[in-house]
Amino acid sequence: MKNFPISKSRRLRSTPYTDRIENQGVSAYTVYNHMLLPASFVSLEADYHHLKEFVQVWDVAAERQVEISGKDSAELVQLMTCRDLTKSKVGKCYYAPLIDDHGNLVNDPIINKLAEDRWWLSIADSDVIFFAKGLAAGNNFEVKIKEPNVNILAVQGPLADKLMAKVFGEKISELKFFNFDYFDFKGVKHFIARSGWSKQGGFEIYVENSESGQDLYDHLFEVGKEFNVKPGCPNLIERIEGALLSYGNDFDNRDNPLEANFDKYMNLESGAKFLGKERLKQIRDKGITRKLMGVKIDHTDIDMYCEKTLFDDNNDIVGFVRSAAYSPTFKKVIGIAMINKPYWNLDHPFKIEINEKIYVGTVCDLPFI
Amino acid sequence: MKNFPISKSRRLRSTPYTDRIENQGVSAYTVYNHMLLPASFVSLEADYHHLKEFVQVWDVAAERQVEISGKDSAELVQLMTCRDLTKSKVGKCYYAPLIDDHGNLVNDPIINKLAEDRWWLSIADSDVIFFAKGLAAGNNFEVKIKEPNVNILAVQGPLADKLMAKVFGEKISELKFFNFDYFDFKGVKHFIARSGWSKQGGFEIYVENSESGQDLYDHLFEVGKEFNVKPGCPNLIERIEGALLSYGNDFDNRDNPLEANFDKYMNLESGAKFLGKERLKQIRDKGITRKLMGVKIDHTDIDMYCEKTLFDDNNDIVGFVRSAAYSPTFKKVIGIAMINKPYWNLDHPFKIEINEKIYVGTVCDLPFI
Repeated sequence: MKNFPISKSRRLRSTPYTDRIENQGVSAYTVYNHMLLPASFVSLEADYHHLKEFVQVWDVAAERQVEISGKDSAELVQLMTCRDLTKSKVGKCYYAPLIDDHGNLVNDPIINKLAEDRWWLSIADSDVIFFAKGLAAGNNFEVKIKEPNVNILAVQGPLADKLMAKVFGEKISELKFFNFDYFDFKGVKHFIARSGWSKQGGFEIYVENSESGQDLYDHLFEVGKEFNVKPGCPNLIERIEGALLSYGNDFDNRDNPLEANFDKYMNLESGAKFLGKERLKQIRDKGITRKLMGVKIDHTDIDMYCEKTLFDDNNDIVGFVRSAAYSPTFKKVIGIAMINKPYWNLDHPFKIEINEKIYVGTVCDLPFI
Repeated sequence: MKNFPISKSRRLRSTPYTDRIENQGVSAYTVYNHMLLPASFVSLEADYHHLKEFVQVWDVAAERQVEISGKDSAELVQLMTCRDLTKSKVGKCYYAPLIDDHGNLVNDPIINKLAEDRWWLSIADSDVIFFAKGLAAGNNFEVKIKEPNVNILAVQGPLADKLMAKVFGEKISELKFFNFDYFDFKGVKHFIARSGWSKQGGFEIYVENSESGQDLYDHLFEVGKEFNVKPGCPNLIERIEGALLSYGNDFDNRDNPLEANFDKYMNLESGAKFLGKERLKQIRDKGITRKLMGVKIDHTDIDMYCEKTLFDDNNDIVGFVRSAAYSPTFKKVIGIAMINKPYWNLDHPFKIEINEKIYVGTVCDLPFI
């Protein structure tokens, strides 16, 4: 794939850590929530191997927060998601698909419940703040909605616990998955969750004090040498292997949560009041005709500019690959694809064109590993 | 400035013209509405000189459309903008700031009125579709909201009229500024407006039929040789000289329309019902304390990663530069800056740090030329 430089501007916001990652050799950027998000350092594959063996510090400030607070905040947050949050607890993180009134997906944030009347939606790449503002204005809700200046540092990888314990004390090891608490670094309290956009384990530090966050960034590298800490970022190969879905890549506002396999985050029979509920019941009762599945392709390289079509032997459409990468683990290209119903149990290979050649592949369940 | 490659993926959508502009030598991309937008070809300065003398074809598919149609569409569109559209006419384009219920800016689209109950909002870089969907759901409006597959080609520059007349016939020369009509290319009707994100004059072709658009793209270059047609894109230097504001660069959701000099697109005394109206009256009556102005800096180079602070002799803050570039016309750096009220009539130079050196500059009115 030919490289094209990114043209920087204020509109593609830098983060408090941008200078640091550029000094450390970030080798590509993507843009996420109007902000620079590193996409690779040494290479996709080298970063992948390192992430699975050691520990990385990630500048994921682009995972922006939408803060919703005030008297009607719980009602507004619930209105936006098909997941029942009526029994949600302060101190917990909830992966929760956001849905519009047609039952289509708007985003898939982690919703952090800070208080009964204060929430942070840690969002994927779409402007949830304007959805929330529109709904609040239309319903005359008494809420405050803003994007606070929170710039997340993620610490990910099998040695993440050891590095974090060295910085924040052993108590952080007791933090359970998708729980958060506050921990001290040199006199500054940091909101830390056991979460992160990899399957290797780790933490996300929701930095509100940028200066302390920059100091913490440097400190993690200083004391992390014994764990072979490196700068990193959400890794395309690792996240596809683990089937961590990406809004805009694997699904978007033309897809519904059933097609995206979000059934377990959807509570249609609960008392929760949310947008698109009746529409989603109709879709469920009628049955979906396509869904996200895995694909394995007998090839070693793929460029994904846009989705690629899969064909059967009769040149009928099997589905569309939306994300893909070469997996060193499977020794072939793996991908996430929207597969048409007749092919969900496909037992013979599909065909796909890559760089004007035809390759074959198979459909499989997610996650891969 | 060091170059960093952009990491492509489906999430950063390609356009129907991406293959063509890459073959023609696009040299940098930005991302705009989750889509690739070319940022330069030969160089910012070479592109600038060419744009001001000849004619360019631009892939500005990233100027996405939000289509709002149905019984309550006029009410919803009006609710979103402080510009009075109650007397708006089919066939006309309206530059219209979108405002939230706090009186802050959400976007600054051109609103095309296709019919009394059908509108295209040709948007800047924020997800207006979710603002519209939230407002529609909250108000129980009877509307349809979607992003149609429209991929704009702009034809810009002093020779744009000649090139367009050669392709679409002399009748297109009669099209007035900010009006649109339908014109035929090889049997396919195209929506064409006299508009565009430059001050050099030209047209925007709202391509709905991608195949015809690609054919048209090639045809414009074939028949445009006599006008020295080249591929181009919105040019940073030219748009700053002409004070064409950019959402996310020059203003954003923390700014109000008075601060952004949108007074003439704001009808607070009209009967139009829109969000933030009372709040905007309060802001107007109280008076703003900062506004966008021009700056000229005695230097030949500037990198804009994020806004830069301007200081007076006492090191008090004059304001913040938000966009800037070297202007070959003024032989210095020019920029768009949010200037604090005490400095609106500043008659002595401010100071600014660029790459660890101090330079001086002056505040001026917009546009520059």
